[in-house]
Amino acid sequence: MAKIVLYMFMSLDGFIAGPDDGPEQGLGVGGERLHDFLTFDGPDDDPDHPSSARSHDEVGAAVMAEAMTTGAVLTGRRTFEFAGQWGGDHHDGVPIVVLTRSAPAEPPLGHARYVTDVREAAAQARAAAGGRDVLLHGAEAARACLRAGVLDEMALSVVPVLLGAGRRLFDDMPPELVELELVRALDGPGMVHLRYRVLPASASAGES
Amino acid sequence: MAKIVLYMFMSLDGFIAGPDDGPEQGLGVGGERLHDFLTFDGPDDDPDHPSSARSHDEVGAAVMAEAMTTGAVLTGRRTFEFAGQWGGDHHDGVPIVVLTRSAPAEPPLGHARYVTDVREAAAQARAAAGGRDVLLHGAEAARACLRAGVLDEMALSVVPVLLGAGRRLFDDMPPELVELELVRALDGPGMVHLRYRVLPASASAGES
Repeated sequence: MAKIVLYMFMSLDGFIAGPDDGPEQGLGVGGERLHDFLTFDGPDDDPDHPSSARSHDEVGAAVMAEAMTTGAVLTGRRTFEFAGQWGGDHHDGVPIVVLTRSAPAEPPLGHARYVTDVREAAAQARAAAGGRDVLLHGAEAARACLRAGVLDEMALSVVPVLLGAGRRLFDDMPPELVELELVRALDGPGMVHLRYRVLPASASAGES
Repeated sequence: MAKIVLYMFMSLDGFIAGPDDGPEQGLGVGGERLHDFLTFDGPDDDPDHPSSARSHDEVGAAVMAEAMTTGAVLTGRRTFEFAGQWGGDHHDGVPIVVLTRSAPAEPPLGHARYVTDVREAAAQARAAAGGRDVLLHGAEAARACLRAGVLDEMALSVVPVLLGAGRRLFDDMPPELVELELVRALDGPGMVHLRYRVLPASASAGES
C-alpha cells in the first residue's frame, strides 16, 4: 500500500517556519534560512514553486527527487493556501488532497480536492497515488495524521540553525510516546537528512 | 582553550525530559525512554550515577567515553540537585561548577562549587578543566550559555521517539538565529549522534 511520507526542513530546535508566517512570507521571519541550501530557478510568476527548487548538493537533491516522484500530495489547507495552491499542480499533475476543517464553496485549483476527515483524506491520497507513495505537506496536517495513526514515515532534513521562535513541527501533541524507527540517516554537506518509520501504536505499547 | 560542550539525549520532538520531572524521577513521565539504550550497573546506593552508565552499542559508548574524559563539569542547579549532586563526584573527581541564581548557605558536596554569573561560571569551568573540554549538563544552563555566547559545541543523541510533552532543550529562546556547523553525524544502531559547533554571533550576522 502507498506510504504517507512527511517531507520537511526543520531547524535543530524544531521549527519549520519563523514567527509571523503568512501568505506573503510562508517561512516567517528568519525562516528563509531553512531553504538556504536551495535555489529556486522557476519562472518569474511563481519562482517558489516546489518543482523549481534545486538543492546545492547531491544528497539533498536525491531526497528532493524522491519527494517529487510521489504519486499524490496530501496537504494541510494552510500550507496549500500559503503556496498559492501551487497553481493547482504540485508536481507532474498528481492528485492533491487538501485536509481542511470546512471545504470552501469555491473549488480548489487544478488537481486538488478538499477533504474534511483526516482518515478519509489519507485513504483518498493513498488510493490516488497509483502505487507510489504520498507526499505529505504541512505541520498541522502532519500532526493530524500522527494522531490518527495514518502517518507512515517522516523524512526530516535538519537544518543547522536555531530559529528560537516560530512554528514548531511537533507541538500540541498528546503526552503519549510515539515510537519511531530510524530507517535512514544521510550526511549531506553540513546537514543530516533523517528518515523515520512511525511504529504502530500497538507495537509501541508492546515495547514500553 | 577548553571548549564547553553540551552532551544531551533528546527526543526527535526536542524534549530532554517528560512531564513532571523532579528529584524522584529526573527524566519525568515517559522520559526514561530517553535512556533506553543505556544500562546502569552502578552500586545499589546510586545506580543512576553517570559513571555507571553503559551504552548498548559501540557508537553510543564512544560518545559517552568522550564525555567522561572531560576535565570539568558545568551544570545547572536543577540538574545537579535532581542527580543528588552526583555524590560530589561526577567522574574522576573533576571540578564541578554549578550555575545557580543564588548560592545556598550550605556548601555543595565534594568537588562542586556554586557560581551565580554564567560568564564567570564558564570561565571558571574552562580554567579548571586542565586543558581538556568542559562537559555541560542541564537544559536551562545550556540556554544560559547559548544566550551568553559561551557554548562552543552541542553533542546531541537524537532518540527515535516523540515524547509529546515535557521539558524542551530549546525553549524560551530569543527569536534570533543561532548559526551552527554540523561537525559530526554518527549513525549508531537506531539513532543518530549529532555534533554541532555554535558559530560566533558576529560570524552569523555576517552570513545572514
